[in-house]
Amino acid sequence: MSKSRLEAFTDAIIAILMTIMVLGLSIPGGDTWAGLWAIRNKIFIYVISYFFLGIYWNNHHHMFQVADKINGKVMWLNTLFLFFLSLIPFATAWVGEHLSSFAPEIFYGTIVLLCDLSYAFLAKQLIKVNGENSKIAKLLSDKKKTVYTLIINVLSLFLGFINPIFVMIGVLLMLGLWIVPYSDVEREYMNSGSK
Amino acid sequence: MSKSRLEAFTDAIIAILMTIMVLGLSIPGGDTWAGLWAIRNKIFIYVISYFFLGIYWNNHHHMFQVADKINGKVMWLNTLFLFFLSLIPFATAWVGEHLSSFAPEIFYGTIVLLCDLSYAFLAKQLIKVNGENSKIAKLLSDKKKTVYTLIINVLSLFLGFINPIFVMIGVLLMLGLWIVPYSDVEREYMNSGSK
Amino acid sequence: MSKSRLEAFTDAIIAILMTIMVLGLSIPGGDTWAGLWAIRNKIFIYVISYFFLGIYWNNHHHMFQVADKINGKVMWLNTLFLFFLSLIPFATAWVGEHLSSFAPEIFYGTIVLLCDLSYAFLAKQLIKVNGENSKIAKLLSDKKKTVYTLIINVLSLFLGFINPIFVMIGVLLMLGLWIVPYSDVEREYMNSGSK
Amino acid sequence: MSKSRLEAFTDAIIAILMTIMVLGLSIPGGDTWAGLWAIRNKIFIYVISYFFLGIYWNNHHHMFQVADKINGKVMWLNTLFLFFLSLIPFATAWVGEHLSSFAPEIFYGTIVLLCDLSYAFLAKQLIKVNGENSKIAKLLSDKKKTVYTLIINVLSLFLGFINPIFVMIGVLLMLGLWIVPYSDVEREYMNSGSK
Repeated sequence: MSKSRLEAFTDAIIAILMTIMVLGLSIPGGDTWAGLWAIRNKIFIYVISYFFLGIYWNNHHHMFQVADKINGKVMWLNTLFLFFLSLIPFATAWVGEHLSSFAPEIFYGTIVLLCDLSYAFLAKQLIKVNGENSKIAKLLSDKKKTVYTLIINVLSLFLGFINPIFVMIGVLLMLGLWIVPYSDVEREYMNSGSK
Repeated sequence: MSKSRLEAFTDAIIAILMTIMVLGLSIPGGDTWAGLWAIRNKIFIYVISYFFLGIYWNNHHHMFQVADKINGKVMWLNTLFLFFLSLIPFATAWVGEHLSSFAPEIFYGTIVLLCDLSYAFLAKQLIKVNGENSKIAKLLSDKKKTVYTLIINVLSLFLGFINPIFVMIGVLLMLGLWIVPYSDVEREYMNSGSK
Repeated sequence: MSKSRLEAFTDAIIAILMTIMVLGLSIPGGDTWAGLWAIRNKIFIYVISYFFLGIYWNNHHHMFQVADKINGKVMWLNTLFLFFLSLIPFATAWVGEHLSSFAPEIFYGTIVLLCDLSYAFLAKQLIKVNGENSKIAKLLSDKKKTVYTLIINVLSLFLGFINPIFVMIGVLLMLGLWIVPYSDVEREYMNSGSK
Repeated sequence: MSKSRLEAFTDAIIAILMTIMVLGLSIPGGDTWAGLWAIRNKIFIYVISYFFLGIYWNNHHHMFQVADKINGKVMWLNTLFLFFLSLIPFATAWVGEHLSSFAPEIFYGTIVLLCDLSYAFLAKQLIKVNGENSKIAKLLSDKKKTVYTLIINVLSLFLGFINPIFVMIGVLLMLGLWIVPYSDVEREYMNSGSK
């Protein structure tokens, strides 16, 4: 029951973050397509951030699906993870106004990195609480994707010093990595569901 | 349990979208009825969008009520559907300022179409996952209303090239189609509830 | 289960309405108590609207607690009720700027009346669905408070033609009527809880 | 079941408060680090308020975890507690603009005090409803932390008359007091979970 309240709280936070970002899309000036075209960068970043948060909701859902126990540390790491997620709308609004500028891009990429890292610590703590032979330990045993994500993330931040747009390309690559069906988890998850 | 978390997440997103739209209603300038009358278009579109989202929540509720299984694809199609819904407040705010202009009307109608299409795909995937003999397949076997909706939607977009207001008339027709008691579903749904 | 999703959806809408109203409280101009004092009307109306919504959440909670069945009509009447509630932040923001003006006061009072009426229809439909001998029919058999509320509401709207502030006094009276412990319901409710 | 709806409602309110605060962080002017640096005070206060709300969610979660019964008074005290929490985003936005000013700091500290007091009353009422030998009475029997919190809170408000920044230092001390693992509750809570 305790787990379900943490899940519900996380769902609420992520749902709000995904939807309030749309408030950052100011109405186009004028009633022409040119007005819409003028804010194309903002819409582009909105789409990226929306699916970034959607992927995290999806992963969080899968991970807690197979977690049997939680403790106070899990609750705090989850709060920390949600804190970094909560900065996404702010970072989105800033980079949406300056898509090719250094500071906003690096800031956005850094917030993404902090989300990734705090999520990794959350996952690690969940494995620790549930034991090495738990379902969740098996599910998360293949760390390839997480490692690739962190490498792309850090690399794109460094490349951002050459051209800021590399940060956003890195984020797009990460989305591609996670948006394709997560076949192993899916199989495991559906099996556990059909039991 | 997995299904219930997807339902809760969807409820949260739709609830937020329905309520943050009211933030787009700027306070009337001045303290007279004339001030309120000046924003009548915005209020009119707000009402339409509110019930548009309300209908989708209602349908989503009915559909998942009889769905026994979900999978990863259902989760992604649901996220995509929610993404298009999330653009409704933005489209509402724009068309609310320019009710008789071409670009905002076509944009609004297109977002509505994308909501309709992604919902249709979501329904199709749910039937596929649950099998042709499942309760959900039977519930959704009569596709007349969905087809009418899509025809009205596309037709009104074309008529929008003659006069943009046709797009909104199309949306109003669709609301009328869905707001009347959904007798078949209702019967099926109440029976399944009383079992 | 169907009932619980309607409850959860209603909770989400009311929770959002109660909290986004605070966004209407613009930051005081300057860093002095005078700045805060200048927006005292807005804060006063915010407090009223917050507890108005809180009372409705409380009543909704009690009412559905003892409802065994719902149907499609209940879902639509609930959506209509939530629609009128959703206009409270808008009406609050307007009357907060013009506390002694005619149009904003009458508008606020009318929205409150529409909330009251749609809630009464919702209650009536719930009794119809659950039968005259159901727990909910017994709980709501004493209609005194509802009748008093409607009389105060309509009367204060008429008195508003003499002095607009009467509308707000009416709302305050209604709050007083409902904020005192609802002893009968409470007793019934706790008994049903302890069974 | 009644308890779970109150929990869900509280979760929704706190989740929304934690996330809408980010809307108060206006986008940095310009695309440089200097623009971000210029709003450092706002970000600093945002972080404090976010974790302040996070701690309350955490404590609320723990407390209701072991509460067996609730009544109407608990519901009203919870609504009052949520009301004071709902003023945190407003107080945060004001003090974020004037970190070293007297009125905003005292206002922020007073809202924090009202949150603390209403939470203490809520806890007291929960113990009363559940009895002196209930799990919740045992859990909350050690009132040291609550007393320390109130002392720091009141003291920092008085010191605020010397220098307003003392109010914020007091809040930081309170965060430190609660953010460290709550070992007793944790132990009790995990045991009750493993039973």
